[in-house]
Amino acid sequence: MAEIKITFPDGAVKPFEAGVTTADIAKSISISLAKKAVAGKFNGELVDATLPLTADGKIEIVTKDAPEALDVLRHTAAQILANALHQLYPSMHFGLGEANEEGFFFDTDNAEHQVSSDDLAAIEAKMHEIAKADLPITRDVLAKADALKLVDGDPYQAQLVEQAAAANDGNVVVYRQGDFVDLSDGVQLPSTGNVKIFQLLSVAGAYWEGKSSNPMLQRVYGTAFFDQKAMDADDVRRKEARERDHRVIGNDLDLFFVDPKVGAGLPYWMPNGATIRRTIERYIIDKELQHGYEHVYTPVLMNLDAYKTSGHWDHYREDMFPPMDMGDGEMLELRPMNCPSHIQVYKHHIRSYRELPLRIAELGMMHRYEKSGALSGLQRVREMTLNDGHTFVAPEQIQDEFKRILNLMVEVYADFDIKDYSFRLSYRDPKNTEKYFANDEMWEKAQKMLKGAMDDLGLDYVEAEGEAAFYGPKLDVQTKTALGNEETLSTIQLDFMLPDRFDLHYVGADGQEHQPVMIHRGLVSTMERFTAYLTEIYKGAFPTWLAPHQVSIIPVSEEHQGDYAEKLRKQLAAAGVRVTVDDRNEKMNFKIRDAQTHKIPYTLVVGENEKNDETVSVRRYGEDDSAVVASKDFLAEILNDVASYSRAND
Amino acid sequence: MAEIKITFPDGAVKPFEAGVTTADIAKSISISLAKKAVAGKFNGELVDATLPLTADGKIEIVTKDAPEALDVLRHTAAQILANALHQLYPSMHFGLGEANEEGFFFDTDNAEHQVSSDDLAAIEAKMHEIAKADLPITRDVLAKADALKLVDGDPYQAQLVEQAAAANDGNVVVYRQGDFVDLSDGVQLPSTGNVKIFQLLSVAGAYWEGKSSNPMLQRVYGTAFFDQKAMDADDVRRKEARERDHRVIGNDLDLFFVDPKVGAGLPYWMPNGATIRRTIERYIIDKELQHGYEHVYTPVLMNLDAYKTSGHWDHYREDMFPPMDMGDGEMLELRPMNCPSHIQVYKHHIRSYRELPLRIAELGMMHRYEKSGALSGLQRVREMTLNDGHTFVAPEQIQDEFKRILNLMVEVYADFDIKDYSFRLSYRDPKNTEKYFANDEMWEKAQKMLKGAMDDLGLDYVEAEGEAAFYGPKLDVQTKTALGNEETLSTIQLDFMLPDRFDLHYVGADGQEHQPVMIHRGLVSTMERFTAYLTEIYKGAFPTWLAPHQVSIIPVSEEHQGDYAEKLRKQLAAAGVRVTVDDRNEKMNFKIRDAQTHKIPYTLVVGENEKNDETVSVRRYGEDDSAVVASKDFLAEILNDVASYSRAND
Repeated sequence: MAEIKITFPDGAVKPFEAGVTTADIAKSISISLAKKAVAGKFNGELVDATLPLTADGKIEIVTKDAPEALDVLRHTAAQILANALHQLYPSMHFGLGEANEEGFFFDTDNAEHQVSSDDLAAIEAKMHEIAKADLPITRDVLAKADALKLVDGDPYQAQLVEQAAAANDGNVVVYRQGDFVDLSDGVQLPSTGNVKIFQLLSVAGAYWEGKSSNPMLQRVYGTAFFDQKAMDADDVRRKEARERDHRVIGNDLDLFFVDPKVGAGLPYWMPNGATIRRTIERYIIDKELQHGYEHVYTPVLMNLDAYKTSGHWDHYREDMFPPMDMGDGEMLELRPMNCPSHIQVYKHHIRSYRELPLRIAELGMMHRYEKSGALSGLQRVREMTLNDGHTFVAPEQIQDEFKRILNLMVEVYADFDIKDYSFRLSYRDPKNTEKYFANDEMWEKAQKMLKGAMDDLGLDYVEAEGEAAFYGPKLDVQTKTALGNEETLSTIQLDFMLPDRFDLHYVGADGQEHQPVMIHRGLVSTMERFTAYLTEIYKGAFPTWLAPHQVSIIPVSEEHQGDYAEKLRKQLAAAGVRVTVDDRNEKMNFKIRDAQTHKIPYTLVVGENEKNDETVSVRRYGEDDSAVVASKDFLAEILNDVASYSRAND
Repeated sequence: MAEIKITFPDGAVKPFEAGVTTADIAKSISISLAKKAVAGKFNGELVDATLPLTADGKIEIVTKDAPEALDVLRHTAAQILANALHQLYPSMHFGLGEANEEGFFFDTDNAEHQVSSDDLAAIEAKMHEIAKADLPITRDVLAKADALKLVDGDPYQAQLVEQAAAANDGNVVVYRQGDFVDLSDGVQLPSTGNVKIFQLLSVAGAYWEGKSSNPMLQRVYGTAFFDQKAMDADDVRRKEARERDHRVIGNDLDLFFVDPKVGAGLPYWMPNGATIRRTIERYIIDKELQHGYEHVYTPVLMNLDAYKTSGHWDHYREDMFPPMDMGDGEMLELRPMNCPSHIQVYKHHIRSYRELPLRIAELGMMHRYEKSGALSGLQRVREMTLNDGHTFVAPEQIQDEFKRILNLMVEVYADFDIKDYSFRLSYRDPKNTEKYFANDEMWEKAQKMLKGAMDDLGLDYVEAEGEAAFYGPKLDVQTKTALGNEETLSTIQLDFMLPDRFDLHYVGADGQEHQPVMIHRGLVSTMERFTAYLTEIYKGAFPTWLAPHQVSIIPVSEEHQGDYAEKLRKQLAAAGVRVTVDDRNEKMNFKIRDAQTHKIPYTLVVGENEKNDETVSVRRYGEDDSAVVASKDFLAEILNDVASYSRAND
């Protein structure tokens, strides 16, 4: 037998017989290491613990604690899932199966019986059977023709074979678990017995290759861990995320839906969600008007030339929708940004220094092409309406205007009860200033002004050198989604470039033309993303001023107190309260529970006493107790609740 | 000479020598007829009075009173205009010249000096000179090559020659006025002296062939009549229309603008116009919510398949924007209508008879492809936001729901002080019922229900058989624009077809599935068209609740009463009033006049007395007198004015 030289992470070199495996090498060091070994890293590449090594190289033993280990475990679990499905549904076709951050999944298509969540228990039981049988898992490389024979009759697998062969010189890697053979490009564990702690989670539709024109497959989701504690902790985390997940709450409270068949990433706001959105929109417009902004409406379409001038077409094209040829020489583009539109408003008049800062704002609808796989509820969409604003300032006004925007922002956050956020100031990279729009003096002065404003207001912030945009420094306000992703809630960006590209001017006190600086600013992001964010931080229990339904009136007996309930409803509705009488033919306790399930801020129960005394028995959302108060006192209370953005009751 | 037989309108036949002209024939009847003869109609075709007739045929003498006469006069006037321009600007190129309903125009391009309104007097003088010279006008037919030689060096005329030759077997018709030769396809008068009463009106840019990618030409507009009285009356009409023209007022009051360079038919709403629009939007949404509508937001894009199902793609395609290929098999279309979107909302849940009538409403943005020549300010646009609503009813609910909508409509009209409108009920054609969606019983019942509702409410209406849509009967509310065009302000349309095509159902009291009827209804049309309409009926003097600026405060001396003015401003603004202090360095009377020019409802002048007494001197828009009142009384007055939609002050 030939000998090969294996180099260890500490630099030590040992000879082994060619054909030795990572598992053998681990065993040669210690039994305990062998037990913990999940896979190897040979010359930096992840390999099966059982793969024979035939050349000199560096080895690293990947143990259960290594970052790659979960991936190996979950690839193996995915294959056990496919094996179980194949045994239960022999005619089933298979799409992709993969490990991911959350666990693993496999796409399935079974004309006779599409898998549903009802089937998960049986599938999971079969998986445990396969795991207990401790079948050895082996890797094999087949010629394309042989691999195609293997998957004969499964159009998805045939396509995957073609792709794998094309990427790998005509060879296709397969893994075997006993009799079951499966395509796989992921490293796996040595035997099915290594996969002990796992569970199936859900089933959901997924288009083949992510294209809505392709067939819809059933994707079975599961997760796997090396120990039970980790899986329990993950259960808790998932439950909490689920409780806050705006997609789940959005469905439970009938806020919105997205149907890829009529348009991927294009949400439909149902009446409940629309009420929340409308309330946010009116709030932010009124707030901005009070703060000196002028609101406009500008078209969602613009001649493509404007985006060539702005630079979006050159640098942002892949995020833009395809242009439309109008047949008369005009190419129209759905706008990906509102800045060129507000520049048109600025340019419509000759501007004087007396008009600056000129603050143009809009709830501007925009379209951005996100890959369908990246779309998610209201958080990642293709059509969005941004709380957008552009302030045109003289260079010396930057610091004051920045402070004004920050003050407004903090005021808005307080009204929405947003507390969990942090500020990040982004500067240009002082070592690579040539990478940025060329105006050294402006950069230096502006960056100092931003920092000065933050310090003046006593706000905490981090500074990030090299994180500025090409066209100017910026401030971002960062927060986190329920699923733990960092997200930008608000932003203030200086822009030295667009005023130059669009040749913007104002007449100064000296009678000469000067160039303004643009400040792009968004306070509450897009209506879509902000509503998703609020849904998550409130867990669907919207404060009274935002709640789609604010009051549910429940008569103890429809026959006896129905008239009183209706009289109350009219009084409240006339005062602008969103109120309904629950006159369904159901038990009172069912109705009270139902109002709580729908997170309605106030439930008013009215019986004979309440009717006689002109009172109501009030139960606030989430409280067990109720209190009887005069109906006119309740009206005053809820109006104050709404007017104070529900902060008076904290 | 050969003889031809000429048949007169009364059937009489007379022989004439071949080569006789209409003018000759008229003279053969009477001198007075010859004087009134403008042209002939030979075998139904309009011909020059001087055209030799060489075959048998029917003749009609076209006199000054005939409907075609003005057209002949104006074609001649257009050629005189071209002649005058050619004499004044020998190097000028010429585009199209035509007669139209308003008069005539000629498109010009003159690299050295583009014509402007400053030049009109000189051009008009030159035209009078040509008219007085009474040059004979003669018609000639040239071969294409000769015609091309004639227009050598003028690219537009060369293109017109090619088109004329292609349409006419290689021949090109030209008209001569003395030395001047001009392409023309219109019949003209015998001599320039026949054109006596005319004037030039304006100059405006017009793209060559109406395409924004082509050069911009200068279009010179004029008008001509047979007598001075008619021209004077037209002057008055034009002046009145101009005073009401929303495009003129929109520019004067800075309400909106459209710039074909960034997008034809895509209006930008400036802050003033946006304030009016926002006020209308909030008003109509709140009104509809009170009346049991549920407001939603749905995407402006939808999969093209939905418009194939709805039938729009088959029957409405040329009014739709080009579809966008998203590259993943999805074809997205900017919606031309909101109905399919609201159908998605309906279909998102299983519906019960208890939910009907279900009223879905939205300010729905839509896109329709209008030819660029048809675009006009806010009245005809390519992007519009419709006050749209769809009510889903059980068939037996049609009459009640129709009445509810009518009542709501009349309430809304009263709030906007709209009085000049009429109702038109459109039925299917009883003799061609096969042309309509097939459901005889439904048609009969529904038409009776609509009529019954109108009668119950005591509303006047006309009935129009055969004017119904394919899918159901409808009610239109008709009104007129400043330019005299009839326009539909509101509509209520029943639809039996879409519920069928989209397979809509509700579960009835019997537990069975039933098909609802859809009612499409719009109360105030699109935000664009309605704002244009209101601008015209108010002549820009918007009632206080809609006015962009409600109050202008003018201190007699900025130094002495500036603080009091600012205190007042704050008080009013805090109460939601749109108020500014006019602190410009201008004379008081200038500021008062300026407030009137901008049609601001209230001007408050404050001097030392007002400051000491906490009063204001109030002048209402359009009134000469002012009255001194306590500032708190003024606040109460204006709040009442706004809350009552300014009807309290009628």
